[in-house]
Amino acid sequence: MSDNLTAEQETGGRRGRGASGGAAARRAARSGGGPGTQLTYIKRKIPLYEVLGEEGISLIEHNADTVLEEIGIDFRDDAEALELFRQAGADVKGERVHFPRGLPRSLLKTAPKTYTQHARNPARNVEIGDKATVFAPVYGPPFVRDLDGNRRYATIEDFRNFVKLSYMAPSIHHSGGTVCEPVDVPVNKRHLDMIYSHIKYSDKPFMGSVTAPERAEDTVAIAKIVFGDDFVENNTVLTSLINANSPMVFDETMLGALKVYARHNQACIVTPFILAGAMSPVTVAGTLTQVLAEVLAGASLTQLIRPGAPVLFGTFASSISMQSGAPTFGTPEPSLVSYGAAQLARRLGLPFRTGGSLCASKIADAQAAYESANTLNSTLLAGTNFVLHAAGWLEGGLSSGYEKFMMDVDQLGMAQKMAEGVDLSENGQAMDAIRQVGPGSHYLGCDHTQANFQTAFYRSSIADNNSYEQWLAEGEKSAAQRANELCRRWLESYEAPHLDPAIDEALVDFITQKKNSMPDAFT
Amino acid sequence: MSDNLTAEQETGGRRGRGASGGAAARRAARSGGGPGTQLTYIKRKIPLYEVLGEEGISLIEHNADTVLEEIGIDFRDDAEALELFRQAGADVKGERVHFPRGLPRSLLKTAPKTYTQHARNPARNVEIGDKATVFAPVYGPPFVRDLDGNRRYATIEDFRNFVKLSYMAPSIHHSGGTVCEPVDVPVNKRHLDMIYSHIKYSDKPFMGSVTAPERAEDTVAIAKIVFGDDFVENNTVLTSLINANSPMVFDETMLGALKVYARHNQACIVTPFILAGAMSPVTVAGTLTQVLAEVLAGASLTQLIRPGAPVLFGTFASSISMQSGAPTFGTPEPSLVSYGAAQLARRLGLPFRTGGSLCASKIADAQAAYESANTLNSTLLAGTNFVLHAAGWLEGGLSSGYEKFMMDVDQLGMAQKMAEGVDLSENGQAMDAIRQVGPGSHYLGCDHTQANFQTAFYRSSIADNNSYEQWLAEGEKSAAQRANELCRRWLESYEAPHLDPAIDEALVDFITQKKNSMPDAFT
Repeated sequence: MSDNLTAEQETGGRRGRGASGGAAARRAARSGGGPGTQLTYIKRKIPLYEVLGEEGISLIEHNADTVLEEIGIDFRDDAEALELFRQAGADVKGERVHFPRGLPRSLLKTAPKTYTQHARNPARNVEIGDKATVFAPVYGPPFVRDLDGNRRYATIEDFRNFVKLSYMAPSIHHSGGTVCEPVDVPVNKRHLDMIYSHIKYSDKPFMGSVTAPERAEDTVAIAKIVFGDDFVENNTVLTSLINANSPMVFDETMLGALKVYARHNQACIVTPFILAGAMSPVTVAGTLTQVLAEVLAGASLTQLIRPGAPVLFGTFASSISMQSGAPTFGTPEPSLVSYGAAQLARRLGLPFRTGGSLCASKIADAQAAYESANTLNSTLLAGTNFVLHAAGWLEGGLSSGYEKFMMDVDQLGMAQKMAEGVDLSENGQAMDAIRQVGPGSHYLGCDHTQANFQTAFYRSSIADNNSYEQWLAEGEKSAAQRANELCRRWLESYEAPHLDPAIDEALVDFITQKKNSMPDAFT
Repeated sequence: MSDNLTAEQETGGRRGRGASGGAAARRAARSGGGPGTQLTYIKRKIPLYEVLGEEGISLIEHNADTVLEEIGIDFRDDAEALELFRQAGADVKGERVHFPRGLPRSLLKTAPKTYTQHARNPARNVEIGDKATVFAPVYGPPFVRDLDGNRRYATIEDFRNFVKLSYMAPSIHHSGGTVCEPVDVPVNKRHLDMIYSHIKYSDKPFMGSVTAPERAEDTVAIAKIVFGDDFVENNTVLTSLINANSPMVFDETMLGALKVYARHNQACIVTPFILAGAMSPVTVAGTLTQVLAEVLAGASLTQLIRPGAPVLFGTFASSISMQSGAPTFGTPEPSLVSYGAAQLARRLGLPFRTGGSLCASKIADAQAAYESANTLNSTLLAGTNFVLHAAGWLEGGLSSGYEKFMMDVDQLGMAQKMAEGVDLSENGQAMDAIRQVGPGSHYLGCDHTQANFQTAFYRSSIADNNSYEQWLAEGEKSAAQRANELCRRWLESYEAPHLDPAIDEALVDFITQKKNSMPDAFT
């Protein structure tokens, strides 16, 4: 006997089908298109996977301290940051900051190991840090791959759609930030429409604008309309993305946004944006060293601005193709970087961000899936706390894909189930079932199966597990085609969460006033 | 700045392209279609991932002993096996064998923790056990998904093709067994053509026939022609698949083949074939309990036949859809089963087999890739020693896919690179590179990059990492289309390994004589 389905096994399958209400019920459940019950963020019960031993970790920490001391980090066009570092004991030469060994680590002692990011619906609050994992959608693409098979510039309509889909997706815990760039809205006003969309079309937590300090201030002002002034100053309602300009540079724009958020007790994800071989050495250990140095430098600034402000150790890991210079994803080296960086973050006591469902593919094909699955597997097992780009990422982040989003969301549900680990309760042990069934029978109708079948196995929203003949009869659809259909059904069935009309009005007033205060800018 | 490629980063990319010889060189390398240098089996340097703690492992071991003692295992139509167990101290009632607690574990003390499977080319010998991982192709499908997009019954020509592709694939270490069922050859003579194909078209190690004891004897006889009588009796040149008929049954066919192989010192993979919910309880812990009980029973028989004969702890883990009764792959539950079973195997001191690149999809689409990647990731991190179905599996094992094979082979290369872990040497630390480049520059042309770029990053044979515009200009191909083209190039460029003409002649003589000795049978 080989590992195939025998006739007997297929009969067993048919019995199972009958027992659970049949193919018609299944189709009905699917065609309903409802995304299902919302899940809270992941509270990881499975162990961590770590690729570095104590010796490796210590070596990289030592080397990072050497980078900070000997080479230093540039903080560009920001006199305040340079002055703060000088006062803290760093050696500042021009815009180059040299850190005495251990200084950044010591400054970061005030940063929390975990924090709550509040949502306007408290049931959607998320914990970021420790054993929690939070999934947020793709961030940043100027293009979309739409449901008609076109790749085109993203619009505010697309932006709203991805917010709606993220709101509906049970295993997306966070509304994210720039789910795509709405290029039909003026650059200097875009952030207002984006933040408003997150609040209006979702009740999950969201990210702030980082493209200019004044836009970060606008984000905080809008948050205060929703949450109240005092609440914002004493809690965290925004988690925003601050990228280092690797290698070893922080620029004015990012520093400006970081300072605004830290000052208001809002969380920053300090993330070296690394295409190894271009922005960092071609080796994993070399990349980890530089990543750690950059995070230590950038993150410690938040604590000089406001001790106790939440800050994340971020890592965006990719390699470049040494043949074409193009970025690559889902390959072994970025996975090793993610695993290693997670260990460095834990040693530092900071919440950790990396990974997602990254890929270089232009379409929702097998390349996209292999690369995304490889990335997501390492993201989950590394113990990542905040996962940007968890759904919808295509083309190295140049495009937000609707079909890809739906497929990724299905995978996130699997990751969440995986994180629950092995149930060792009496019901999990199932000794009564084994006794009841005995040799040569089957478990399809036994009491234990009847009692557990609805939750026993993760049920994919995308996968077709039917017979070849049934798949043929249903049109030989690919996963992408099924994702396309499901996405259309979700968007059709979307219903907005309740928003207090007085708050909505105040938001619209603020945004209108802001927009009227300046001419449109498109660069 | 978002996580996208900025204009500056893209410029960097173009520089990189220039530095390494340009797109033309890359295309030339690809169109050559050569599969590259053969890799030896994986010697894992990365840590294991384990989902169960000591408490969980002990609980499952205790429960498995209870199953063996209280419920027992059926050994059907095999008086010899029953007599051997009786003599060893088991309580045999009819065909049901009840094992005193600890007996099978004690019998398995003579089984080796690791063994060498010899290939006819000693450079292709593999180690199976301990820190080694060996990848073998898909096993068993009666259908193929061919390069013209058809799904049809497999032929001996397809069989030879998959042997040739496995021979060429650098990260396939083992030629496997029934890479597809050649249904155009009579059932009772098929094994002769299959074994001959493995020897003629490849020089990697292979598996024996298990469909009848006399076919297992034929396999051993053929192996003796290749390796010599004494060598076969004193070494292992075959690793063959013995499936339990779960739950808790071993049948005459499998027992017959197991006894032949064990008697000749050849390796058996004792594998409960589990679709959880049908052949085992719907829970992970319950499934692990039954798997362990079945392996303990079946594997211990090999040691009663010949103490010291290699035997593997096998697990084929899948769940059934509780909606349709169909088998599902790449979902969380089978991954947890694989991780847990690997731990149980290590405690038992047996080499371990599970996983592969399993999927339910009918085509090489995103579903196939997500499911296969999820399975392969857990297979690798579990520390699996022998990985059947590592490439080419489609449709729950009903079909061997040519495109899928090529895509999986690419992923196996990544897994092999991943298993090397983090290089902490001076070159790996790359401190000189970080010093040379410094803040605000890039690593594309630095000495360290130049010295390492050829081996720094895994280079995919399938992924398209080019710009959207270039991908568009090249025909908007999917990964499956590129895999199709690559597969055709490989098959065109195939060259058979040397085989001693005297051995070849002796093999053909043996097979001709065997075939002439019986009429064709097609059932």
